[in-house]
Amino acid sequence: MENREFTVGVDLGGTNTVIGFVNIHGDFIAEVSFATQTKAGPGKFVEGLARRIKEMQDKLPDDCECLGMGIAAPHVSYTTGKIVAPANLGWGEVNLISMLSDHLDLPIAVLNDANAAALGEMGYGVAKGLRDFVLITLGTGIGSGIIANGQLLVGARGLAGEFGHMTAVCDGRECGCGRRGCVEAYASAQGITRSALELMSDIKTSTVLEREKFSDLTSEKVFMAAQKGDSLAREVFEKTALILCGSLADMAACFDPEAIVLSGGVVRAGNTLLKPLRKHFEESLLHIFKGQIPILISKYPEGQAAVLGATLWLQQSIELPEHWKTNSPG
Amino acid sequence: MENREFTVGVDLGGTNTVIGFVNIHGDFIAEVSFATQTKAGPGKFVEGLARRIKEMQDKLPDDCECLGMGIAAPHVSYTTGKIVAPANLGWGEVNLISMLSDHLDLPIAVLNDANAAALGEMGYGVAKGLRDFVLITLGTGIGSGIIANGQLLVGARGLAGEFGHMTAVCDGRECGCGRRGCVEAYASAQGITRSALELMSDIKTSTVLEREKFSDLTSEKVFMAAQKGDSLAREVFEKTALILCGSLADMAACFDPEAIVLSGGVVRAGNTLLKPLRKHFEESLLHIFKGQIPILISKYPEGQAAVLGATLWLQQSIELPEHWKTNSPG
Repeated sequence: MENREFTVGVDLGGTNTVIGFVNIHGDFIAEVSFATQTKAGPGKFVEGLARRIKEMQDKLPDDCECLGMGIAAPHVSYTTGKIVAPANLGWGEVNLISMLSDHLDLPIAVLNDANAAALGEMGYGVAKGLRDFVLITLGTGIGSGIIANGQLLVGARGLAGEFGHMTAVCDGRECGCGRRGCVEAYASAQGITRSALELMSDIKTSTVLEREKFSDLTSEKVFMAAQKGDSLAREVFEKTALILCGSLADMAACFDPEAIVLSGGVVRAGNTLLKPLRKHFEESLLHIFKGQIPILISKYPEGQAAVLGATLWLQQSIELPEHWKTNSPG
Repeated sequence: MENREFTVGVDLGGTNTVIGFVNIHGDFIAEVSFATQTKAGPGKFVEGLARRIKEMQDKLPDDCECLGMGIAAPHVSYTTGKIVAPANLGWGEVNLISMLSDHLDLPIAVLNDANAAALGEMGYGVAKGLRDFVLITLGTGIGSGIIANGQLLVGARGLAGEFGHMTAVCDGRECGCGRRGCVEAYASAQGITRSALELMSDIKTSTVLEREKFSDLTSEKVFMAAQKGDSLAREVFEKTALILCGSLADMAACFDPEAIVLSGGVVRAGNTLLKPLRKHFEESLLHIFKGQIPILISKYPEGQAAVLGATLWLQQSIELPEHWKTNSPG
């Protein structure tokens, strides 16, 4: 019977949304990924999400049973079920639980996306067995999920872990949040693109990036140029690493973690980013932490850790069948 | 009987050490404060500490019973009992538990001083009833104790909460820890003195501080000058507030706390510091936290919150008589 039971996990990302049907062992029995269409508003998005979930269910054998649904989303508070002014989605305040309940008759739990990714990594990923770590998602935006003494740190309003909006550069770039110098303005995908533009304005070296239309410049293109040896593009990642490592060292001083886990699209830059990052991170660490805090890289494709974490969060929120309590890390 | 039982709490500070005998209700039944003499080394200090505790015990009625001792100290790890290279004490690595055990036959628990102050404030002080807050000690050094979901955040090695060594100013002043721009280099007592010197070099305004010998300049003197209307001294506190509030806003983004609690000698500057601090803090907060995170001020004289917290930490570490479990917030 337990092999027929599953939970639904959703990662609502600024660019893509991932739906996963996850069984008791943390295996994906079905998965769909699609571009997050935000412009038609949250109502249309929720409608499309519910339709896709029903279509996925229709393809499963009749005796499969869905126990509930966990949703990971940016700027969402688990206490209210609301997304609060998500900069990367362009919506106002959105009550995900009540909107989805109009379409789906399931227990629903919501959680901040980076918090969900942290739970997923602790349950099944590179952080399995760790009790104190900081997960940071470097993607369209930047978020973090903090595990302290084996528990997710959620904060008083469920909004803890806004690492992306900690100050990395004093009086630095404008950030989407209205403040200046946030980590997100430098080490997110868009931040990397902005760093390329800044360097192109600052350094008189020629770069393959000059051939791009401004509006077409992306962090992926900067990465590809760096891989081909473009010196300006390499400098962009060196600078990104230098800025990011200071903020990571601050997190280390704050949390005394066993490790820092990085995930998200920006991490696909691999050693172009990670080699300078690990070097500068070690130099930046407070002496009592030097040599003790490895930077680990998520092994999951985009969204999967958050999907898994969303199902684990759901499991903490609902009354589960007995065999789930003993067999799942949730 | 329970009125005859007490625990010993010690706050080993960079300037002063406080010993308190604390009963089940959190009342001080005896208290001694003395200058921390560090130059003769940790052996002599521990000897003097043990002697003072015995002298205090000798003055109590014979039937008084000491249940154990909790010590709050800078850079101490509760897991090893060791003080690790404490910049403000000038000692090497010191194993407090084993050194004290040579003099006192008591269960001993140690804890980082700011962590202890956080426990003390949660148990008996301005943070009573809060489950998510950050306590920051602004004194000779700067530390923090973080309470998340009602629990002390200790980290993997018991070294969490090094707020004083988070970066406040990029490429800023040298800090005693070997890094640059740490909060401690600006908002500690010494940091305030350094800011006065910096402003005296930078601004051609006259100030009463010019009459001081360089070696006699202290944060207290800067504060007294500010109170008398000295414009340079006032500017020092305005700048201190501006730098500190950015780091406090970062902590808010990280922890989503109900409140931030400030304690330590620097807080005695009162509204000279707190008025600009509260104003700039509100401006610096990420939009989702604006208007929601009050800055509270500890009501305890120096060291008392840490002494109380050290006794609460001891209570979590030893087997207590049954009536302590129900009557104490520990």
